[in-house]
Amino acid sequence: MTTMAAETGPTDLDILVHAAHEAYQGAYGVPPRERAGWLTAIADALDGAADELVDLAQEETHLPEPRLRGELTRTTFQLRLLADEVVAGQPLDATIDHHDPDWGMGPRPDLRRVNVPLGVVGVFGASNFPFAFSVMGGDSASALAAGCAVVHKIHQAHGRLGKRTADIVIDALGETSAPEDLFTAVTGQEAAEALVDHPLVKAVGFTGSTAVGRILRERINARPEPIPFYGELGSTNPVFVTEQAWAARRDQLLADYAGSLTLGMGQFCTKPGVLFVPDLDESATATLSEALAGTPRFPMLSERLAEGYGKAVAAVSATDGVETLIDGADRRDRVDAVAAAEEDDDGDDDDGGVDDEPSPTVLVTTAEEVRSRPEILGEEMFGPAGLVIRYGSESQLAAVAELLEGQLTATVHGEPGEHPAELLSVLETRAGRVIWNGWPTGVTVSYAQQHGGPHPATTAPGTTSVGTAAVRRFVRPVSFQSFADEHLPPALQEDNPWGIARRVDGVWHGPHETGGA
Amino acid sequence: MTTMAAETGPTDLDILVHAAHEAYQGAYGVPPRERAGWLTAIADALDGAADELVDLAQEETHLPEPRLRGELTRTTFQLRLLADEVVAGQPLDATIDHHDPDWGMGPRPDLRRVNVPLGVVGVFGASNFPFAFSVMGGDSASALAAGCAVVHKIHQAHGRLGKRTADIVIDALGETSAPEDLFTAVTGQEAAEALVDHPLVKAVGFTGSTAVGRILRERINARPEPIPFYGELGSTNPVFVTEQAWAARRDQLLADYAGSLTLGMGQFCTKPGVLFVPDLDESATATLSEALAGTPRFPMLSERLAEGYGKAVAAVSATDGVETLIDGADRRDRVDAVAAAEEDDDGDDDDGGVDDEPSPTVLVTTAEEVRSRPEILGEEMFGPAGLVIRYGSESQLAAVAELLEGQLTATVHGEPGEHPAELLSVLETRAGRVIWNGWPTGVTVSYAQQHGGPHPATTAPGTTSVGTAAVRRFVRPVSFQSFADEHLPPALQEDNPWGIARRVDGVWHGPHETGGA
Repeated sequence: MTTMAAETGPTDLDILVHAAHEAYQGAYGVPPRERAGWLTAIADALDGAADELVDLAQEETHLPEPRLRGELTRTTFQLRLLADEVVAGQPLDATIDHHDPDWGMGPRPDLRRVNVPLGVVGVFGASNFPFAFSVMGGDSASALAAGCAVVHKIHQAHGRLGKRTADIVIDALGETSAPEDLFTAVTGQEAAEALVDHPLVKAVGFTGSTAVGRILRERINARPEPIPFYGELGSTNPVFVTEQAWAARRDQLLADYAGSLTLGMGQFCTKPGVLFVPDLDESATATLSEALAGTPRFPMLSERLAEGYGKAVAAVSATDGVETLIDGADRRDRVDAVAAAEEDDDGDDDDGGVDDEPSPTVLVTTAEEVRSRPEILGEEMFGPAGLVIRYGSESQLAAVAELLEGQLTATVHGEPGEHPAELLSVLETRAGRVIWNGWPTGVTVSYAQQHGGPHPATTAPGTTSVGTAAVRRFVRPVSFQSFADEHLPPALQEDNPWGIARRVDGVWHGPHETGGA
Repeated sequence: MTTMAAETGPTDLDILVHAAHEAYQGAYGVPPRERAGWLTAIADALDGAADELVDLAQEETHLPEPRLRGELTRTTFQLRLLADEVVAGQPLDATIDHHDPDWGMGPRPDLRRVNVPLGVVGVFGASNFPFAFSVMGGDSASALAAGCAVVHKIHQAHGRLGKRTADIVIDALGETSAPEDLFTAVTGQEAAEALVDHPLVKAVGFTGSTAVGRILRERINARPEPIPFYGELGSTNPVFVTEQAWAARRDQLLADYAGSLTLGMGQFCTKPGVLFVPDLDESATATLSEALAGTPRFPMLSERLAEGYGKAVAAVSATDGVETLIDGADRRDRVDAVAAAEEDDDGDDDDGGVDDEPSPTVLVTTAEEVRSRPEILGEEMFGPAGLVIRYGSESQLAAVAELLEGQLTATVHGEPGEHPAELLSVLETRAGRVIWNGWPTGVTVSYAQQHGGPHPATTAPGTTSVGTAAVRRFVRPVSFQSFADEHLPPALQEDNPWGIARRVDGVWHGPHETGGA
């Protein structure tokens, strides 16, 4: 079976999900090295097709080539890192309690637990990361590493790239021992709805807007069987600059801010949407204007995003107490034109040209204004626009930070020796990642990464969608009580044939030399 | 602040949740040994009050004294085991990635992740375990071990015991460094609803019926902020006996079945509600009758449960193809009387006497009948009743097992050398714990325990409500990027001042000698 050419209808979707479920069953319990081989085969195939894929991605997303090559590198690195984790047995969390007649609450039977994959996972691609959060992005890769099958909903903003990527993945898996249909891709709204409704789908991963995330969540809540919904939604990623840092290196901070704000035309879930500074005089404004003027500019990912961006900027600009510091007004001019066009249109035309490139917009307000209308802190403008908030005194900042909703990231810039403890302790309760003297864009894929945060940043703040821990979203534990050793899954057999990391009678043992990554 | 005397009103609930939130903040980041001390202080106090508590529990629950003493032992053992886990740092999952300029996808910043507690947790007590799944049961203990504050809704079936237990817990914590109101208890339906709605409540733990679980889940789904709902709901815990085992030790199996079925008057979430055997002739029936006649009998936990039990038995008995093998008809006689009484009653009178003790009921059907009405496999009769299913051939069993919904447990009895692989592999997909040659009642508290399973057994099959892994339900990770060592949380500082288990650059290191449990 191959990727559907046109939009996937509900009957085809049902067939695909059933096929994926069979593939999941066929892949159940395969040895870690075999499963890891499937991930590296995908990585090799994607790397091998890099030129073709990056060309396609450029056409559809307008993102610059270096960025796309970097994103593809990250995507295949992630697959190989997860393959290493699979070999080391980390996703299995294998735990062995031997029979213990003297256990404190009474005799303990032999009990051994291992994680098993949930089943078919529905994954929704994001428009803004055509590789790393799309067809074979973090959700797909971690679901496959967990042992699940994946049905991927291709984002319409890069439909040709999505289909081509899916075909490469399917072909690569076809060269391995992986069951057919372990990975498949679908397109269209109808398939998306049928996917989250399908009884054989056991989890959904999504990266996108808070609004679409809410619709999906409501749909999933209406299922007879509750399933986990891992939605990575909106975040304004506040950045706080201390008075000392501002005094010491204002111009450098503004230059770096300009770069992070406009990276990928501001179309990042970790874009620093809100910046707190002590003041912003004419000289600082001139520095910022200059820095922004030097940033690369290219069209937005899709007409729909461009339109939503224009509306969001218009809404925040119109808020009492907000002034426009740097005006990329071309986008807001478009809002009226788009609204007029909508009257003759179903609004679904994503293929419409996105010829003009918005110039960056910076709005400004004060911490006092924010205290009376804190909702402005959560207004995401998905594009190259930021809200700068002037604060009178650093001692205000912790109280203002208390007004924040959940965030993917929160950042503080300070000088050596400084430690704004109160502010940092508030930010730790609001964000999944807290950054000192850095910028939130740029999310490394590693063991300690946490890309997730309290709602509305994500729907499941206990989980991450980036890094090795992302696999945990797609497993559930099963315990085996009093089984004969030879009838236990290999992960739990006494002599550890897979050579994986295990916890035995409460003590962790690393992966064997034979099985280490 | 102490436990509310009467039912808790919404204003009082709001005050309590705010106080709990403050306590959570006050307890944030305390060293593991200090937090562990709070758990052991609670355990010591409960053990010290054992006589009084067991007396109260006997009066309110009708459960026998040895069972209640055993349950209290388990409850305090669990607190101490979790205290050991806290000291070892297991709930923190501390992970350190050092700065790495050569990381495969590009330079990696110093990134360190640790779990932090979610906040205030609402815990609902279960009627059937007045200690182990109630005021200071697994949900409360694991939430406190995670660093959360707990607001516990006392089950009305043992209201006096609940309040007394809560007071002992509160007094015990009062003797430690724990902030006031880290644990509080409330009563009544109105408080229960306000608890799950409250914006400062960040997770809910519940053990009870599928029906009440569904109501809670819908209420929680309607919150603006989604929070995890850990509901342990219904399970019929199927047990399969192979032909060889039946031939070799039928009478012993029936005797053990009778014991497990009627343990605690069948009021266990792990009661073996469904038993598959090759046949059940007159001789076997006589053996089972005799074994059941010898089991202890006492009144049900509450009139409401007795009523629900009678209705459930009546409903299953009336199903086409189901026959009554052993008739504990006294309960079904009561259904009409209860229905008549309800016309004059609001149905909420749980204090009404439960004077008569139901005698065990065994219903019987065949695997063929089950294939045409599989829903009968999910009909939980919460009390001393079981459904025996005769199968014609062992080769049918895997296909019948496919009809099962999610279960807490599934069991197979076989002879040495036997390995019904197909059946076992189906059961592994249906249950959280698979048992060989044992009985599902009796759930040890240990590292490898998995008390949870696919829906409807639980609402979150990736989690367990028993064992050390239960703590994971109540934390979320936070990553710290590029922090100066002295400004990191102690769990993440380079020299590991808490001496906890950590993963450093991908390699796990056990807890230091100084910090080991």
